[in-house]
Amino acid sequence: MTEELVEDSAGAVLPVPAAPPVQRLAEVEPARDDRPPREKILDGAQDVFSLHGYSGSSLRMIAAHVSVSHPGLLHHFPSKASLLDAVIDRLEARAQHALDALPEVRADRGSLTRWIEAVLDPAADANELLSVLDTEAVNPDFPGRFRISRLRRVYEHILLQCFERAATGGGLREGVDAGFAARAVLSMVMGHAVRERSVRPLQRRPHADDPRRDVRQLLSVLLTDDDD
Amino acid sequence: MTEELVEDSAGAVLPVPAAPPVQRLAEVEPARDDRPPREKILDGAQDVFSLHGYSGSSLRMIAAHVSVSHPGLLHHFPSKASLLDAVIDRLEARAQHALDALPEVRADRGSLTRWIEAVLDPAADANELLSVLDTEAVNPDFPGRFRISRLRRVYEHILLQCFERAATGGGLREGVDAGFAARAVLSMVMGHAVRERSVRPLQRRPHADDPRRDVRQLLSVLLTDDDD
Repeated sequence: MTEELVEDSAGAVLPVPAAPPVQRLAEVEPARDDRPPREKILDGAQDVFSLHGYSGSSLRMIAAHVSVSHPGLLHHFPSKASLLDAVIDRLEARAQHALDALPEVRADRGSLTRWIEAVLDPAADANELLSVLDTEAVNPDFPGRFRISRLRRVYEHILLQCFERAATGGGLREGVDAGFAARAVLSMVMGHAVRERSVRPLQRRPHADDPRRDVRQLLSVLLTDDDD
Repeated sequence: MTEELVEDSAGAVLPVPAAPPVQRLAEVEPARDDRPPREKILDGAQDVFSLHGYSGSSLRMIAAHVSVSHPGLLHHFPSKASLLDAVIDRLEARAQHALDALPEVRADRGSLTRWIEAVLDPAADANELLSVLDTEAVNPDFPGRFRISRLRRVYEHILLQCFERAATGGGLREGVDAGFAARAVLSMVMGHAVRERSVRPLQRRPHADDPRRDVRQLLSVLLTDDDD
């Protein structure tokens, strides 16, 4: 890769940082000790899975991150897979909550946009975690494979309902298919969730690429204006 | 998560497969023994990294996958990190090739669309591999972090040039920003590359969700018709 790819005059390509700023595990979240031990361990497991992936994590890493002894952790969760199950329980509860709330959301563009932005913020911890586990689900040996793939489909289903409701009122832009729109938004959320933690921390100066604004612009391209 | 989320009448949510069909490493690619050992090992490392991620892979897994002895592998690559470097060299060469070819591509919508589809096919092996390594780059301890994040920016830069050229001829849809369009397409390619190997193999019947068609539809939403 030639040098002009690294540093170009337009600043479009990532400059090489002398010492890239990094967010390491220890910085992720200060321990809040009022949490019950099980919740504290689960919060910690989410942090560790979200940075290292399930396959790159160990029970020892999680125990050290939450300042619990290894036997203490094993008392609550006998295996890494049981921790993953409990973490996915939380992600599923979040999706279920969104699904339950959906019928209350008004079908105009503004209401749907605000709601989708709140549920599928690429910078939200839960979506960053999902983007990592989702990628691990390409591996047939990943124990969370089926539940995580299903979760992706659940969010696509939620988005599909949003776009179908918009379409009923003529709110879907001409030539846009609701299923396509659902998959497009979800891939942007997953892709931008990764981008927020890969590209973003290596940027030396501010860029006009807020992921929430990108989601909003995508929705504005897929949906018609309310006054059309 | 309630049962109707798993199996609903509209078939929008993923059904539970009795025995999900899986693609395991042994099925990925039959060994082609006419390759030089170094190339064979690199091809195998790409397969293993692409399924297990860098952090979930080991030199022993790669040696077994390509039927080379562990010392034989170490002769060519002394460490997992050196294999990753060589794998990223290949990905960078591919991006460089696309960058070099870009000036020859005509700026009309049809030509740009066909070219982007060819370079950024979500189902292409290289893009599936990139989507996995890209996700691992959220971890500051991932040794390929900087080069992979830069690679993402290079593809965004390529797409930005495409959309800026389209914009010069009035080919960018009103209200669409070229930088947004570049990030949107790349996140769809990365997100759909994951989806092809997580959701797709668990679907029991065909769905009208070809990832290439989604990329094409996204481009058609971002670009104006040639005859506008």
